[in-house]
Amino acid sequence: MSLEVRAVAKGVRNAQRRLGAAGGSKRTEALHSLSRLLSAREDEILEANRGDLDAARASALAAPLMARLALDAHKLENLREGVLSLARRPDPMAEVLRETELDEGLILRQVPSPLGVLLVIFESRPDAVVQIGALAIRSGNGVLLKGGREAGRTNRVLVECLRESLADAGLDPNAVAGLEGREDAAAALDLHDLVDVVIPRGSGELLETIRRSTRIPVLGHSEGVCHLYIDEKADPEMAARLAVDGKCDYPSACNATEALLIHREFLPRAGALMTALAEAGVEPRADQFCKPCFPDSILATEADRGREYGDKILALFAVTDVWEAIEMIHRHGSGHTDAIVTENPDTATIFLREVDSASVFHNASTRFADGYRFGLGAEVGISTGRIHARGPVGVEGLLTTRWILRGRGQCAGDYGPGKRSFTHRSRKTT
Amino acid sequence: MSLEVRAVAKGVRNAQRRLGAAGGSKRTEALHSLSRLLSAREDEILEANRGDLDAARASALAAPLMARLALDAHKLENLREGVLSLARRPDPMAEVLRETELDEGLILRQVPSPLGVLLVIFESRPDAVVQIGALAIRSGNGVLLKGGREAGRTNRVLVECLRESLADAGLDPNAVAGLEGREDAAAALDLHDLVDVVIPRGSGELLETIRRSTRIPVLGHSEGVCHLYIDEKADPEMAARLAVDGKCDYPSACNATEALLIHREFLPRAGALMTALAEAGVEPRADQFCKPCFPDSILATEADRGREYGDKILALFAVTDVWEAIEMIHRHGSGHTDAIVTENPDTATIFLREVDSASVFHNASTRFADGYRFGLGAEVGISTGRIHARGPVGVEGLLTTRWILRGRGQCAGDYGPGKRSFTHRSRKTT
Repeated sequence: MSLEVRAVAKGVRNAQRRLGAAGGSKRTEALHSLSRLLSAREDEILEANRGDLDAARASALAAPLMARLALDAHKLENLREGVLSLARRPDPMAEVLRETELDEGLILRQVPSPLGVLLVIFESRPDAVVQIGALAIRSGNGVLLKGGREAGRTNRVLVECLRESLADAGLDPNAVAGLEGREDAAAALDLHDLVDVVIPRGSGELLETIRRSTRIPVLGHSEGVCHLYIDEKADPEMAARLAVDGKCDYPSACNATEALLIHREFLPRAGALMTALAEAGVEPRADQFCKPCFPDSILATEADRGREYGDKILALFAVTDVWEAIEMIHRHGSGHTDAIVTENPDTATIFLREVDSASVFHNASTRFADGYRFGLGAEVGISTGRIHARGPVGVEGLLTTRWILRGRGQCAGDYGPGKRSFTHRSRKTT
Repeated sequence: MSLEVRAVAKGVRNAQRRLGAAGGSKRTEALHSLSRLLSAREDEILEANRGDLDAARASALAAPLMARLALDAHKLENLREGVLSLARRPDPMAEVLRETELDEGLILRQVPSPLGVLLVIFESRPDAVVQIGALAIRSGNGVLLKGGREAGRTNRVLVECLRESLADAGLDPNAVAGLEGREDAAAALDLHDLVDVVIPRGSGELLETIRRSTRIPVLGHSEGVCHLYIDEKADPEMAARLAVDGKCDYPSACNATEALLIHREFLPRAGALMTALAEAGVEPRADQFCKPCFPDSILATEADRGREYGDKILALFAVTDVWEAIEMIHRHGSGHTDAIVTENPDTATIFLREVDSASVFHNASTRFADGYRFGLGAEVGISTGRIHARGPVGVEGLLTTRWILRGRGQCAGDYGPGKRSFTHRSRKTT
């Protein structure tokens, strides 16, 4: 089995090299073709999906998983829109990032280059096949797609569409391949010489399991423990609004607010906040300082610090100033997204400068931490890692660079003390 | 022991957060102070170094290691120059990389941010303490420095200088710490929650050993198997010059040329190349097609493909065209640096476009692949990894980004179909 997966991955690697070196217009053509195929083969896709849904129903799959598994004409239309919007965006590989004249007739350019081969492991959502496949084509990457078993029939048709779209554009279809079964996934996680990055799409547990079982870099986030610090000088109405939106807009999202850090001087003005949380049906868990202002709350324990509830539960901790808030965020946060509410610009500046998280906000909901909202177009995921990509990751997160040097036969030994000097004239900097 | 290293690393992490958030002028001040301290404490440094050298002599350390271990007034002067040149460069953290208006009064900025805590493991060269320490200060990173046992006395004084320079600038000296002994290094490699990147400075073996023993991302290169492809249309004199420079300028460097791929049609014109290699004292190992043109060569075997000699030995393989050369580079190269010699611009374009290595050159020696020559200033190392940094890595390689959003109380739930729309007006793009 392992040998077979290695052969498939080698095929992806070889095809990817040609995909990455092809002109951007070919990759754009493939995306247009993909959008057409998703229309032309819609019946086939939905039929395969019905097959998956029937089998899932028979094995009593949980309702939220069923909802993620299901495709319909509307979801397909959204997917086509996403593919076309990627096709309309400028080729991310066309740009020269940096250009330096090292000496007369010796010109160095740094240019974007695909990461190489992505291994994407996702749970039951078949939309991920199209989204990630399209991102990979746009960025010249090869991709091994391993979806959940429940979506096997649907995924197979969608992988066929991706491959066909490459062939339509005169590109090698082997740049995209589907994997099935746990053994295949495990074998692929061992291929650190052929796979450049693993992208898990699913729960934090999925990511942690993968991170523990591979030496390949993993792109993604395991936890989203986001804080909202309500400063002494916060507008009480705004604090209430941001707390409710941060918690309730989508409580199980990674960018949902999990804890409020409340300045003790703000507590006497927390009435609007208390009412808003109660009206929104949020269960507050307050420490001893906050409890008197939130009489309906239950007492928070140490276990409520740094906890991702994924539900309409919110921890409330009192702090004495912005510095204590920052300290608590560094100690208990997950480096995902943290926000401050304050009308004091100096305190905001301290917070924005000091908090070492991927996204740091002033007077805005933590829920804005998202590739679409950030204007990055399609989203690869949100990274809480610090290496390579951090925060919401767009197509750029699937690119690395190459250095291209054009000369006239220059030798390194010609340069040095008493010999030629470098000019290092910058023509363009990143 | 492990607990102690964890405590030290925690101290570095805490101090680093303040170092990263401090103004760039403070970090510049620390670098100026470091340069002064290296002068003021020169006698002490050289005395400690003599102690290390005496002990090394007594234990019969190999001559090349002795040479790397030794410091003198001239080497210290160079180190001071390097530190000052970093101090003179603009603060890499001052730039705004991207700015987008998400909506009126909702402004997103992507700004540089330190990676966090670096763990630098190096062999006997004490210069690495100053070079890496200065790079860390410039980029706001904390650093754990683990040098070779032989350089213990010297390293201790140099780490003191780094810490004192931070204190002089009003920064927390604990952002820099020295580690000693193998157990400390092993314990530090386990701290994936506190250390963000490991930078080995030394042999490819050191890097491979480290890569196998940690889950922390490792920045560096394990091998440099660089190819020079001599095209049918190569200028014979230029080919000879680039081959000799690539091989002989510094044969044990990672960017030294290890193999020539020679177009069969070029072979009849390989006389100048043969003579130049012989005069430079290079031992050629030629395949059956090249052998007749290099009568003094020994016959190359399969073991000579993809081999890093690190010596004045050069493999010579014939190819039928540029495509076969590209194929051989992808199969046997290490993705470090590969070059083409040709007067045919179309062939050069194919090569530069298709070869998937960190550095790809036309009519220039592979030896140019170097941070100093590329004009990056001080060099962190050369990366053959594709994630985060690729090729010669300067200060930028020690930075990641943060996303800063400033609003007026906007909620994510306010946006969507039938509600507010994002403007996504780009003010600055990377």
